[in-house]
Amino acid sequence: MNAEPSPQACPESRDAGERGPAILMIAASEADANLYYATRFLAPDPFVFLEVDGRKLLVMSDLELDRAKAEARVDEVLLLSAYEAKARQRWATPHLIDILGLVLDEHGVRDLLVPAGFALEHADRLREKGYRVTWRPDPFFEARLIKSEEEVAAIEATQRATERAVARAREVLQASEIRGDALYWEGRVLTAETLRQVIHLALLEEDCLGQHTIVAPGVQGCDPHHRGAGPIRPHESLVLDVFPRSSRTRYFADMTRTVVRGKASDGLRRMHEAVLAAQLQAIGLIADGVAGDEVHREVGAVLRRAGFETGMVEGRMQGFFHGTGHGLGLDIHEPPRIGKAKATLRAGQVVTVEPGLYYPRWGAVRIEDLVVVEAGGCRNLTRFPKTLEL
Amino acid sequence: MNAEPSPQACPESRDAGERGPAILMIAASEADANLYYATRFLAPDPFVFLEVDGRKLLVMSDLELDRAKAEARVDEVLLLSAYEAKARQRWATPHLIDILGLVLDEHGVRDLLVPAGFALEHADRLREKGYRVTWRPDPFFEARLIKSEEEVAAIEATQRATERAVARAREVLQASEIRGDALYWEGRVLTAETLRQVIHLALLEEDCLGQHTIVAPGVQGCDPHHRGAGPIRPHESLVLDVFPRSSRTRYFADMTRTVVRGKASDGLRRMHEAVLAAQLQAIGLIADGVAGDEVHREVGAVLRRAGFETGMVEGRMQGFFHGTGHGLGLDIHEPPRIGKAKATLRAGQVVTVEPGLYYPRWGAVRIEDLVVVEAGGCRNLTRFPKTLEL
Repeated sequence: MNAEPSPQACPESRDAGERGPAILMIAASEADANLYYATRFLAPDPFVFLEVDGRKLLVMSDLELDRAKAEARVDEVLLLSAYEAKARQRWATPHLIDILGLVLDEHGVRDLLVPAGFALEHADRLREKGYRVTWRPDPFFEARLIKSEEEVAAIEATQRATERAVARAREVLQASEIRGDALYWEGRVLTAETLRQVIHLALLEEDCLGQHTIVAPGVQGCDPHHRGAGPIRPHESLVLDVFPRSSRTRYFADMTRTVVRGKASDGLRRMHEAVLAAQLQAIGLIADGVAGDEVHREVGAVLRRAGFETGMVEGRMQGFFHGTGHGLGLDIHEPPRIGKAKATLRAGQVVTVEPGLYYPRWGAVRIEDLVVVEAGGCRNLTRFPKTLEL
Repeated sequence: MNAEPSPQACPESRDAGERGPAILMIAASEADANLYYATRFLAPDPFVFLEVDGRKLLVMSDLELDRAKAEARVDEVLLLSAYEAKARQRWATPHLIDILGLVLDEHGVRDLLVPAGFALEHADRLREKGYRVTWRPDPFFEARLIKSEEEVAAIEATQRATERAVARAREVLQASEIRGDALYWEGRVLTAETLRQVIHLALLEEDCLGQHTIVAPGVQGCDPHHRGAGPIRPHESLVLDVFPRSSRTRYFADMTRTVVRGKASDGLRRMHEAVLAAQLQAIGLIADGVAGDEVHREVGAVLRRAGFETGMVEGRMQGFFHGTGHGLGLDIHEPPRIGKAKATLRAGQVVTVEPGLYYPRWGAVRIEDLVVVEAGGCRNLTRFPKTLEL
């Protein structure tokens, strides 16, 4: 009973003169960066994108027709309901794929190239109709990895807004009063929730949207994706990891700083020094042609040489147990990853550099900058200070 | 060269005693409401969810292990890297699906049920390994459509926050001064961008996140998904469509009001009256067991009887050319749709009721409330006034 087609990975070569497959995407561009990248058109509901012999087509609902014609960077916008009316002559209740079939047939398309994340239902329905559907592993558009000057400028602008928002959080921390084991700001106990709100409001003033921002005090920071909750205490580590998207350009930025309001323990200070040394080492290594996995190994080595081991302790990972960095752009996580997996860094890639150390007995430290890879080095897009104690 | 498996829709019946397929999802729960619904665990990167014989399992990275153990409503959390280490004994660079295969084999699973949107790459790789992969059309979890009391309360709370944010926008409009064909607020020309910012800041204070909020003045509102830009003028229609998500509960709400600062034209006032009449008619009809498509047809009939025709005029859709409503919950658009397609409304569903009329010569009107379907009627979760002129 098993259906066992071979994986239909992208054909690697093609005879000259042979017609390539048409590119097909069906998604909501608000949730799909590839589709937004291909069309620069934002819509909340799924629509059809087709690229046939280099010509870009959209198939849009009545609702989105005008806006798509005005805004989408495509060659033609077709009206879904017109094809739907034709489809009703053959099927009582045509499925989207029945309707799409009419468009494909009109363009003589039998061979489709889709992203790896293409919906299985659509693929199975297309294959049942006799279309050949092949997927290409991520990244679907190689070009997305190499940022244009305009894209780097957009990312850098989001990073500046991020820095201004984190500066606001620093001001709040510095203005907070230490009373026993609590911090008071404007007469109330300062919490992670309040400080996150301060950051989000500052971002919104910059037309940026912060979501899931990490404001993780003390041991909470030792789960690197813990968002943080409750009182921020003096003399404890506080991880601020802020990665908003610009509502205007849709490009992300990403920055992490670890601070202590009051005095850091010796253990925490040594951790901060080691993480900073590892980060500077990594930034010093990053350049066009360098292996990301080499950079990651070097980060681990710097931390180990400083005496910080990684491993499972009492059922919990401790030390440095995440990647060194990741690309970003229209998505917050894009290739390349700077981690265990092999990856060659290329000029024009924008990547984070964010080593960290996590030991529940001392706290958490992560320091993250954003750099653009260049020939012979990299340019740091981050200007924010890395002071531990406030 | 075509690979043509049959669509693997969900088997409709199963012999008693036969073991059902395991449910498999691989996604980032921040972007996938089904996965969040099944686990109540939020993560920014894809992870594996498996439900075998009613037991829920997660396969998590080192990075998310602790948080998943603490927060996810599942029976067991497995460590991805432990299986990855085993996979390396067989493959030099194991793919996620190789690693997942070890988990599946350990649990004796050969038969997998996945959402319709499951990634084609994963499905093809699983099928190549001999697993049977069948997809179920949306809604993947029927239970998501029928909201519990707790869910209705969460949606209602988001709706209250939405109303307070729209009230703030009304205050700004009322406080604005009419000077010629411009509105001035705090000494500056009032724009859609400014008013959107006012709404977003008010939402953020309520721990809600507004995105793509529509503040569409004049003819811009005639594209129902135009977000709006530039000056808001007096005596023109202004569509305010606000649909934030609560950052705390993750449930959406949705409300639209159309207002005019100053005096509405006769045409616009007649449109507003007709849309309001159509909306009240629809709300009066909605009840458990009622056909959504009947409600939608009745809305169209009310508008037509009031003299408002729908159709293409000079290449542009005019009149009423979108659905009457949609379900919402953890997604902004959920089944059921109240539109052309057949759909029976059921008690516990939360749906919008949002007829509209769009004529470039007069402007745009849309009025949207949120109701919960009940036996014999529906309960309106919306309390905001529907006054046209401010």
